[in-house]
Amino acid sequence: MERIERHACFGGWQDVYRHESKVLGCDMTVGVYFPPQAEEGPCPVLYWLSGLTCNEQNFITKAGAQRYAAEHGLILVAPDTSPRGDDVADDEAYDLGKGAGFYVNATREPWSRHYRMYDYIVEELPEWVESDPAASDRRSISGHSMGGHGALAIALKNPGRYRSVSAFSPIVAPTQVPWGEKAFSAYLGDDREAWKQYDTVELVKNAREKLPLLIDQGEDDNFLAEQLRPELLREACDAAKHPIELRMRPGYDHSYYFIASFIGEHIAHHARALKG
Amino acid sequence: MERIERHACFGGWQDVYRHESKVLGCDMTVGVYFPPQAEEGPCPVLYWLSGLTCNEQNFITKAGAQRYAAEHGLILVAPDTSPRGDDVADDEAYDLGKGAGFYVNATREPWSRHYRMYDYIVEELPEWVESDPAASDRRSISGHSMGGHGALAIALKNPGRYRSVSAFSPIVAPTQVPWGEKAFSAYLGDDREAWKQYDTVELVKNAREKLPLLIDQGEDDNFLAEQLRPELLREACDAAKHPIELRMRPGYDHSYYFIASFIGEHIAHHARALKG
Repeated sequence: MERIERHACFGGWQDVYRHESKVLGCDMTVGVYFPPQAEEGPCPVLYWLSGLTCNEQNFITKAGAQRYAAEHGLILVAPDTSPRGDDVADDEAYDLGKGAGFYVNATREPWSRHYRMYDYIVEELPEWVESDPAASDRRSISGHSMGGHGALAIALKNPGRYRSVSAFSPIVAPTQVPWGEKAFSAYLGDDREAWKQYDTVELVKNAREKLPLLIDQGEDDNFLAEQLRPELLREACDAAKHPIELRMRPGYDHSYYFIASFIGEHIAHHARALKG
Repeated sequence: MERIERHACFGGWQDVYRHESKVLGCDMTVGVYFPPQAEEGPCPVLYWLSGLTCNEQNFITKAGAQRYAAEHGLILVAPDTSPRGDDVADDEAYDLGKGAGFYVNATREPWSRHYRMYDYIVEELPEWVESDPAASDRRSISGHSMGGHGALAIALKNPGRYRSVSAFSPIVAPTQVPWGEKAFSAYLGDDREAWKQYDTVELVKNAREKLPLLIDQGEDDNFLAEQLRPELLREACDAAKHPIELRMRPGYDHSYYFIASFIGEHIAHHARALKG
């Protein structure tokens, strides 16, 4: 493990680490924000999953989340979005391969060797983070777009593991929209039944734990109608009596300007769950 | 004039415009944040001058300033840092030519044709901004590093024009440090007397208006000892009885993580001056 960046930020430290991932078979970079409270004892952790094309930098440089994490005493962990390296399979398109891991365990060649982002996020990354005495084992999860899909699906698949979950502009039904169909075909093959294990709309139907879903969605998001389709999740939640707070935000788009505007509310939400 | 970006942000709008600069002889891009209050009547304007290598994007994506501008009802204007375009003189180094205009009017070839950032920032940009009915003619100015130099020098050279001035990690004595010596030699020639008109430490000696200088400086800034040297400004201010608040910040570096941590205090400072 190597610390490759350290910046004082809102009284704490915004770090970037490189660590070896056995699960992914490559080195991974991770942004970790330690709030000032981490000097005094273990702090709970909010995991943030970024969207297509992102790496660990986007959230830590653009969301302005450190201010709120410092207020509430949360550690923020922002991993990269796929395995990386010269020997990792890739595709020319922005929505497949590097930068587009979709938080699944790939089962098909050439992807299955490295693309195991689900196991990395659920198991290996928290093990590594929570071995630091500054981190407690209380954790929540959030994310944006592809990372919103990841956060929701991972929380629903792992009852009891996360105190709270939220998402910005998530891909809620990857099995029904072009981004998800393309990625899942490549990573998981043609059996659409196998896709459902990573689809939030499907998972909510049989969720054992009724963890409330907090979602913000911009109404002027270019991807809303074709790729995101939050109404499918609202309908599934209503049918399953699964609690959801879906906030449609007039005027807002898919960018980090949107995330920055409401990340404070999400962090307050997670802080209540993590410290309650 | 063309609007090339518009994003909802903290209840207002983060825009980016391209407009024709007659002074610079090229098109320029400018970030403009309109707070929600701009819908109801003219708002005062804070001009932000960025540092070496930056364009209009750095401040608007990384500083998290919109939150505070929305709280206080300020418009934020973040221009590019030099003229741009294929016919604009440039240099391979990051600290000369494009991205390094140093907010002076160049007098030497090949720079004098386009590099007139001083006139652009003082005259042409505010004329363009303040022709918008959403903007009042109350203005303040701030900036980072090379832009901190620009903000301080411009405010001191134009008594009465700015209600307040502040800077992060400014180059306070460009005539005495390598960055400034290199740029001023190129843009202004060998006559070091001519350089002094753009040097904050020199300007403060005879400032007609005792506009207080608010400065934040990270103690772990890699450029502190060689390029920034805030102690020279503190001494000059003490000698001239010019009010200065120089806040040395332990642990902080030269990055936008530093700016983000304290921009809220700067915007509150400017808001008091602009709305008082």
